[in-house]
Amino acid sequence: MSRDIKRIGVLTSGGDAPGMNAALRAVVRKGIFHGLRVYGISRGYEGLIHGELTEMSLGSVADIVLRGGTILKTARSAEMMTPEGQQKALEQLHKHEIDALVVIGGDGSFRGAQTLAKGIQIVGIPGTIDNDIPGTDLTIGFDTAVNTVIDAVGKIRDTATSHERTFVVEVMGRHCGNIALQAGIACGAESILVPEIPFDFDEICEKLKRGHQRGKNHSIIIVSEGAGSAYKIGEELHSRSGFDTRITILGHLQRGGNPSALDAVIAAAMGGKAVEIIMSKETNKMTAYVNQNVVSIPLDVAYGEMPPFNRELYDLANQLSI
Amino acid sequence: MSRDIKRIGVLTSGGDAPGMNAALRAVVRKGIFHGLRVYGISRGYEGLIHGELTEMSLGSVADIVLRGGTILKTARSAEMMTPEGQQKALEQLHKHEIDALVVIGGDGSFRGAQTLAKGIQIVGIPGTIDNDIPGTDLTIGFDTAVNTVIDAVGKIRDTATSHERTFVVEVMGRHCGNIALQAGIACGAESILVPEIPFDFDEICEKLKRGHQRGKNHSIIIVSEGAGSAYKIGEELHSRSGFDTRITILGHLQRGGNPSALDAVIAAAMGGKAVEIIMSKETNKMTAYVNQNVVSIPLDVAYGEMPPFNRELYDLANQLSI
Amino acid sequence: MSRDIKRIGVLTSGGDAPGMNAALRAVVRKGIFHGLRVYGISRGYEGLIHGELTEMSLGSVADIVLRGGTILKTARSAEMMTPEGQQKALEQLHKHEIDALVVIGGDGSFRGAQTLAKGIQIVGIPGTIDNDIPGTDLTIGFDTAVNTVIDAVGKIRDTATSHERTFVVEVMGRHCGNIALQAGIACGAESILVPEIPFDFDEICEKLKRGHQRGKNHSIIIVSEGAGSAYKIGEELHSRSGFDTRITILGHLQRGGNPSALDAVIAAAMGGKAVEIIMSKETNKMTAYVNQNVVSIPLDVAYGEMPPFNRELYDLANQLSI
Amino acid sequence: MSRDIKRIGVLTSGGDAPGMNAALRAVVRKGIFHGLRVYGISRGYEGLIHGELTEMSLGSVADIVLRGGTILKTARSAEMMTPEGQQKALEQLHKHEIDALVVIGGDGSFRGAQTLAKGIQIVGIPGTIDNDIPGTDLTIGFDTAVNTVIDAVGKIRDTATSHERTFVVEVMGRHCGNIALQAGIACGAESILVPEIPFDFDEICEKLKRGHQRGKNHSIIIVSEGAGSAYKIGEELHSRSGFDTRITILGHLQRGGNPSALDAVIAAAMGGKAVEIIMSKETNKMTAYVNQNVVSIPLDVAYGEMPPFNRELYDLANQLSI
Repeated sequence: MSRDIKRIGVLTSGGDAPGMNAALRAVVRKGIFHGLRVYGISRGYEGLIHGELTEMSLGSVADIVLRGGTILKTARSAEMMTPEGQQKALEQLHKHEIDALVVIGGDGSFRGAQTLAKGIQIVGIPGTIDNDIPGTDLTIGFDTAVNTVIDAVGKIRDTATSHERTFVVEVMGRHCGNIALQAGIACGAESILVPEIPFDFDEICEKLKRGHQRGKNHSIIIVSEGAGSAYKIGEELHSRSGFDTRITILGHLQRGGNPSALDAVIAAAMGGKAVEIIMSKETNKMTAYVNQNVVSIPLDVAYGEMPPFNRELYDLANQLSI
Repeated sequence: MSRDIKRIGVLTSGGDAPGMNAALRAVVRKGIFHGLRVYGISRGYEGLIHGELTEMSLGSVADIVLRGGTILKTARSAEMMTPEGQQKALEQLHKHEIDALVVIGGDGSFRGAQTLAKGIQIVGIPGTIDNDIPGTDLTIGFDTAVNTVIDAVGKIRDTATSHERTFVVEVMGRHCGNIALQAGIACGAESILVPEIPFDFDEICEKLKRGHQRGKNHSIIIVSEGAGSAYKIGEELHSRSGFDTRITILGHLQRGGNPSALDAVIAAAMGGKAVEIIMSKETNKMTAYVNQNVVSIPLDVAYGEMPPFNRELYDLANQLSI
Repeated sequence: MSRDIKRIGVLTSGGDAPGMNAALRAVVRKGIFHGLRVYGISRGYEGLIHGELTEMSLGSVADIVLRGGTILKTARSAEMMTPEGQQKALEQLHKHEIDALVVIGGDGSFRGAQTLAKGIQIVGIPGTIDNDIPGTDLTIGFDTAVNTVIDAVGKIRDTATSHERTFVVEVMGRHCGNIALQAGIACGAESILVPEIPFDFDEICEKLKRGHQRGKNHSIIIVSEGAGSAYKIGEELHSRSGFDTRITILGHLQRGGNPSALDAVIAAAMGGKAVEIIMSKETNKMTAYVNQNVVSIPLDVAYGEMPPFNRELYDLANQLSI
Repeated sequence: MSRDIKRIGVLTSGGDAPGMNAALRAVVRKGIFHGLRVYGISRGYEGLIHGELTEMSLGSVADIVLRGGTILKTARSAEMMTPEGQQKALEQLHKHEIDALVVIGGDGSFRGAQTLAKGIQIVGIPGTIDNDIPGTDLTIGFDTAVNTVIDAVGKIRDTATSHERTFVVEVMGRHCGNIALQAGIACGAESILVPEIPFDFDEICEKLKRGHQRGKNHSIIIVSEGAGSAYKIGEELHSRSGFDTRITILGHLQRGGNPSALDAVIAAAMGGKAVEIIMSKETNKMTAYVNQNVVSIPLDVAYGEMPPFNRELYDLANQLSI
């Protein structure tokens, strides 16, 4: 049977990130604009394996561009880790005559997609708040998460200043200190602790004391979760310096919220680029934000090494918080 | 020596609350408007005991009306709990020829003030995010805190919906479930757990299951810190229902932020009323928000019993989340 | 034919207001909780006349509690002003066997409802950002609108301060200065012009000059649209005082946005109360927020006189901006 | 007389932009970190001509990193356009023994600085919400302004949807449609009108009608102020299509507000880079954000031609709003 109209599937996978809906909307709308039929797959690979595919209309993505989370829902799929699960997923794609699959998620989600690359075009869109995918300057959701953190730290600083206390604020980032670094410099944190750079308790205490001597009795210390437990760091600082410390773990609220302008724009541009990649018959590609432009790069780049941590910005943060 | 111009002192004490600066500004500006001299006392009773009083000008409170925290700073003072501390505080007031003291804080702060009532007029302004002071419908900071909570829960709900998870969100309120109740009903929480009303795990699990059966797989459970540990509640729910639960402790960010419109308005009105009370030579009074008006009531009311928990609203919340 | 289950209709009418969706959700959910069948009517009376009624399920109002606008849509209906239109509306209600109608809107919308009171129970829920309905301390949407205004004015103040300019900001309120008054006092506006109180250009200029003399070169003047054109006021101030003035008309953005905590809470409570009113077989009632409680009052009260303008708060605003 | 310690002056000039304070803080703190003495100049060139220079300490820039506007204030200086004014400005710099001047502002402000380049090192930091300075991918303030616009449009959309109306929203940008383009794509505007690309009323009406036919009765049309008067565009659309249109001019609120994370980060990085440029004895340089890095480029680039309008993104916006 010959089909003229190409069918593409799209799913969101892994942790949700603000802007995923804007990317989805762009895939659906631009796909339909070019005459494709677009199928939304619910709950990531879990939904794909169980055949949860629905054709999406222009109206199905109305009013979602600035909504947080993902209307397709997302899940982590243990079954997709197994050859049997991958086989089932592939069968579903064939059964629905899907020619191309767009995966919005992180590198783990891209690996899952590549097991389906037999006869199916694969395009990844990097969506994760951690900004830890090589090859792209930004991942969808990162800018929003940093803005969420500085908003929360702003509130905490009111109390820190009023009570003259040291606050240790733990932010997301198990292996990557990008959220801590950007948020820390944006909100003028007194210290920033990241997994990439060892830190010295004595130095931090020294800085607290220097501030105290010139009459400044409050401090904000931003800690990536990968740099150590905020509770232990707070206790250690207290026992070494005598300063009153308080702890806040920002937790899940960093994942949510309406996307920032930047996230919504790059999400839309990446969704549009993904459709272009499909139409030009490429596969195993990832959309990437490089030098302020959205481009297409090989998907393999996502599995490579992260670019070095921005040491220059980190050093600047230290100089500005003397 | 005769003095024509009355001198008033003002301090903020206890936990900081959004709107304290708006109240301070009103005390200073309205005081000066009526020809009084106003002295700001730093760091609550701690600063009073140590003589940290500064005369405040019109300009000293410019641009603070919408700023969180308190520019006077606040502290908890152990020394003020002792007769010696109280004596020192009184001496400072006499030394600076202060005729009246305005205390912005909670009931503990008011008790401190009453030890100074010998010859000094005392006026309390209820400022605490907990809304747990009898005699006033609202305390300064409460409305902002509830708005902060619903904003945070909105972000968490994005992830809850996308991942189909149950989130347990712990909010402030050791003895008083008001923040949990108002925030819970405002954001449509599936369950609200407060210290005032015993809860039944089986009922909550039942509701989770009912939701699941009609296709709803995410839930937000708001817990006052006084109702139990969010971690333990989350574990218990998981072990009884099998649902995936996640925990977020909102913590200190609930205290900060710019005041909401309502908090800024009642803070200004209370600050103005405090000056009127002083000018009418009353003492041991508290400003209170009663039936949408700011009035003067006896300070003792603040030490009385809290009005009964709003059971009607609580029941409504349960009916709306069936 | 006897029917055991009561059917209620619900519509939103007039200008949209944040919190209308929260009220709608409460009507639907509490109605269903008590065994009623609830019909949503689209586009106000326009939709009613044209038979746009749909039964609403629990899920139909999921995730709307904090969404601005109204999912039922709203419209102004010229046809409903005519006896023919009213007759058609009544026929639709009878055709769908609706026993009671809940109208979320302003006093004009309530008048429309009362033409349908023949055999149909009528309950009004006051929803309008203007807070201009007698009998209730607050209307749904007002608190959000005031918060929106102070947020916008906060941004404008940054520029006013940086450029040392006088800004005239026009806010909503044709006959009622409540938004201007509350927002003005909350954000520390230098002058507040409302329809209820005549103002004197010379006094405003005097205040600008006094500020200038003590080194303060920026001012925010909040003007209700009913107090005069911001453009003309700005020109007049400029020509009389020589100060550089700029104008901003906030316009429609004051109607939208997610409801504040207070609006969401009173909306939910009013929606719940409306269902109770219906179940207790009352009619021609309005839900009202009186002394911090939601109660039932006669609908006629809404057509009475507005309570006097809060002159005390207005005078305080002037004293605080000396 | 020999001096070992270099003195630098810093001023903000032209329209204020969110992030200017973060840039100022970085100049002051990094300057002091490297042993320089930093002088803040009030009110741009106006203050320079009149000798309003003050030495800045570490503490003088505390707590300003996330504050909108500029604490140095800004002004447009007619006197600086004249040789006499420039001479006076130069004399002030010599009198205060300033070796280098950092100007935070737009290209007009940079031109002013270059008249002072005799013996004074000049460094420009691009700060303007319009993002219309060649050589840098971003100017300080642009990202915040776009976020402010999408926040406002989000509120307007609530009303547009509820009332099924077409809103024409005018945003800043006299010669440059960047704010309209980015905000329009981020918030899913139905049409985007910019000065760079001629538009066709019939096409816009056609799109309105297509939407109407598939049941969508609300639209947001974003218009750069340089693309035409929103009022005239609204009238024209109404008269050609018959659709109900409403107008909102966002106006000055687009300039203010706390800087976004991105603006605060690039502002800090640019402030730091400016000090590095001075220390490396370069002059007539501008800091620029190029390919996600802050670098130094010749100041002349700022007077060159703007890069071409992002037509690709504009076309994508049209495809996504079919």
